[in-house]
Amino acid sequence: MARAEDGARPTLEDVAAFAGVSRSTASRALNEDEYVSAASREKVLAAARDLGYSPNQAARSLVTRRTDAIAVVLSEPEARLLDDPYRTAVMRAGYRELADIGRQMVLIFSDTTEDLRRTVRFLEGGHVDGALVFAPHRADPLPKALRLLKIPVVFGGQPAGLKRGAHVVDFDNESGARLAVEHLLAAGRRRIATVSGPQDQNAPIDRLAGWRKTLLDAGLDPAGLAEEGDFTLAGGANAMSALLERAPDVDAVFVASDMMALGALRTLEGAGRRVPEDVALVGFDDNVTLAPAMTPPLTSVHQDPREQVRAMVAILTGLVDGQAPTPQRRILPVSLTVRASST
Amino acid sequence: MARAEDGARPTLEDVAAFAGVSRSTASRALNEDEYVSAASREKVLAAARDLGYSPNQAARSLVTRRTDAIAVVLSEPEARLLDDPYRTAVMRAGYRELADIGRQMVLIFSDTTEDLRRTVRFLEGGHVDGALVFAPHRADPLPKALRLLKIPVVFGGQPAGLKRGAHVVDFDNESGARLAVEHLLAAGRRRIATVSGPQDQNAPIDRLAGWRKTLLDAGLDPAGLAEEGDFTLAGGANAMSALLERAPDVDAVFVASDMMALGALRTLEGAGRRVPEDVALVGFDDNVTLAPAMTPPLTSVHQDPREQVRAMVAILTGLVDGQAPTPQRRILPVSLTVRASST
Repeated sequence: MARAEDGARPTLEDVAAFAGVSRSTASRALNEDEYVSAASREKVLAAARDLGYSPNQAARSLVTRRTDAIAVVLSEPEARLLDDPYRTAVMRAGYRELADIGRQMVLIFSDTTEDLRRTVRFLEGGHVDGALVFAPHRADPLPKALRLLKIPVVFGGQPAGLKRGAHVVDFDNESGARLAVEHLLAAGRRRIATVSGPQDQNAPIDRLAGWRKTLLDAGLDPAGLAEEGDFTLAGGANAMSALLERAPDVDAVFVASDMMALGALRTLEGAGRRVPEDVALVGFDDNVTLAPAMTPPLTSVHQDPREQVRAMVAILTGLVDGQAPTPQRRILPVSLTVRASST
Repeated sequence: MARAEDGARPTLEDVAAFAGVSRSTASRALNEDEYVSAASREKVLAAARDLGYSPNQAARSLVTRRTDAIAVVLSEPEARLLDDPYRTAVMRAGYRELADIGRQMVLIFSDTTEDLRRTVRFLEGGHVDGALVFAPHRADPLPKALRLLKIPVVFGGQPAGLKRGAHVVDFDNESGARLAVEHLLAAGRRRIATVSGPQDQNAPIDRLAGWRKTLLDAGLDPAGLAEEGDFTLAGGANAMSALLERAPDVDAVFVASDMMALGALRTLEGAGRRVPEDVALVGFDDNVTLAPAMTPPLTSVHQDPREQVRAMVAILTGLVDGQAPTPQRRILPVSLTVRASST
């Protein structure tokens, strides 16, 4: 009844009620099923005409039920979501990009299995026209659960386990790592370590691979020069301590996020190593508030969350508008912003 | 039709279709309107019995249309939202408290006038069962716009212009300021300045009033000892500089947020003033990641966003469940967490 009062388009129920027949009779009549009396069929078709009901609407319910709201789903442990400046940059980018095209951003955090069920239920409840989903963890069951959704979904970063059929906008993480290491090699560094990100996520896996391959291509041995961090300040500091212990002759470090690079810088300072004189430092993100503010300012691989979200929104709005859903996989290029921490 | 397939409770439309009558006939029959034939009335009542339809449901459509999603609306300029640790603490609290009762948090940022229209449209679109709204700015038109909503709304902090009829959970900001200043007085301080928050918001207005009244009650003159900041690190640093210039004999500062207190601390360090020996420092928020981590650790007025959100959720779920909507105004007490910056 809400629909009629809201002036929404007529539904099958409206037609049935108007014709004075059951919903299933109305459906059969409109679908030209033979098990409907001629009288009922006539009444239903008259009701559909009078109400302006179009049978096509049923098939195009996504279009008729437009909400002009788009979900941005961040599937990550709660702490990571709100303490990580890269995630808040993604939230900000989502808000701005969707506001720019007149859409309401509906931000959803999803962490536990209970959250997953609620999230899927909300997304399939007709409350949003589509979803932009960030689910970086390879073990996350959310991407597979979303395959059954009737609304379009675009992923930020390749979701594990969805090799085909998913719309994805990702950054070229491996090339970013290669840019960083080649820059350090060109500056004459030879003992180039890395603080990698968590190896249960695709992006840090690709960054580690890029570091390793570039060293091997240069004829250098990466053995013992990689330490994993958890994308936090403390994680970066601890990983740097472990590296200094294991490889005291390290003369450069490629760190897989700016926040961890800040932690690594504190450890290097505490150990009396000068940056960049003794150890050159390169981060990843080129976070607009963090990288230029560090002392010394941080050289970092530049990736722009706003550019990623903009590309995701472009694909999603096409899908919402009914464009052919050929799966798209866009890999955005990254660049290197050189500052004083490495030169 | 989605409702039937979802196994949701039967609607008036279902009853009408089942009885083979129009929706308006079904409505009249259930409302014992006299303009219904006895035969139709009998058919409708039988259908309602068979389907388990309760006429009360119509009046309580909120119950039948439950989404189990609750909006958390943050109405503030974009930058403030994502850079302010108190706001991220509110987001985190909303997420946890709603997840604990099995509700999906739907986070909405609202800033511009365009956002306002979209936000209201989304909230009245039946996508959420209710809304928790944080709209601290006195000039914000959102609270008044929400008065027309049919879903329940609970405000975090007193909204300007809604003196009556609003459900509000606030902190006792004025008493918090009094606690801070009395603590400084008890420690022997006599030139107690304040860095206030923006005076276009109720909470910082109350904190400034508490500071002023407590000084006057102690027979001290507050003239020239207040400087306004904008709740940012830089704002706190600049306000502290202005205070030192105007009142170089200041021996204590009550700062209206922890983030601004960190800025004030940097200014004091730069000016060669020791904290707490030369100048005692007290913040407001007792932010769990910020206040204890400062050097020296910050004495701060403790307010727990999770406690506020929990109280808001309790009121809201009562309203969603159809409890009598007597406007509630809960003022939560605050306390003082004493650390080394003031002793």
